[in-house]
Amino acid sequence: VRSLGRHLIAELYSCRSDLIDDEAIVRRHMLEAARRIGATVVGEVFHRFSPHGVSGTVVIEESHLSIHTWPEHRYVAVDLFTCGGLDPRPGFLYLKQALGAADARMQEIARGLPEELEEGDPALPKDVRLFTRLARLG
Amino acid sequence: VRSLGRHLIAELYSCRSDLIDDEAIVRRHMLEAARRIGATVVGEVFHRFSPHGVSGTVVIEESHLSIHTWPEHRYVAVDLFTCGGLDPRPGFLYLKQALGAADARMQEIARGLPEELEEGDPALPKDVRLFTRLARLG
Repeated sequence: VRSLGRHLIAELYSCRSDLIDDEAIVRRHMLEAARRIGATVVGEVFHRFSPHGVSGTVVIEESHLSIHTWPEHRYVAVDLFTCGGLDPRPGFLYLKQALGAADARMQEIARGLPEELEEGDPALPKDVRLFTRLARLG
Repeated sequence: VRSLGRHLIAELYSCRSDLIDDEAIVRRHMLEAARRIGATVVGEVFHRFSPHGVSGTVVIEESHLSIHTWPEHRYVAVDLFTCGGLDPRPGFLYLKQALGAADARMQEIARGLPEELEEGDPALPKDVRLFTRLARLG
């Protein structure tokens, strides 16, 4: 049984435009991010836009990773959604470095049902603890 | 130029287990959700887990949609990330109904840089307005 999810939502700023406009490079770094998280990849799709920008998702056994790049703004939106007890943060730290982000912002959101819920119990919104954490990382 | 993003994060509760354990049905509803949002699909990947559960992502011109299902908990995690001025909420309302969710919770997060930033301006975290809105929908 997969446990509940951790969803890390990151904004990467002042990235290297050349790197984030290259589909092959973005794909390679996303697969490496999955590896650093300890995830098992089950599928992927990447797409380069004209005139610029790359989007991609990596479906993992433990949920998914996604990326969207705006080279013209040197901005990248990353989502790292993991379950099964995996920590998404190593993927974030890797991508921040690999894409040359001078600054970044992230928040983590808990997804799903509280762990203490027994299987088969009715799932009510009031049982769900949803939190947002904002962090500045150097 | 794609504009900044709207990221709708939804938890669907008390869904129909039979529907959310069926890869073909989940895929069909996700593509219909993309259509209701007015998005242009550029790629997709879906995967069924053993013994149960479906994960899938749909990459659209305007970012992506993702879904993860836990039939054993009748729980579904949905992300609808749109840019280019598209409103993700019709996709959420469609999926809530299509998957038989008796209850749901959603929040919307703004992604990216503030719209007023001129292209080429330095992008700093302090310029970004990040907000979270929680809503109960009947």
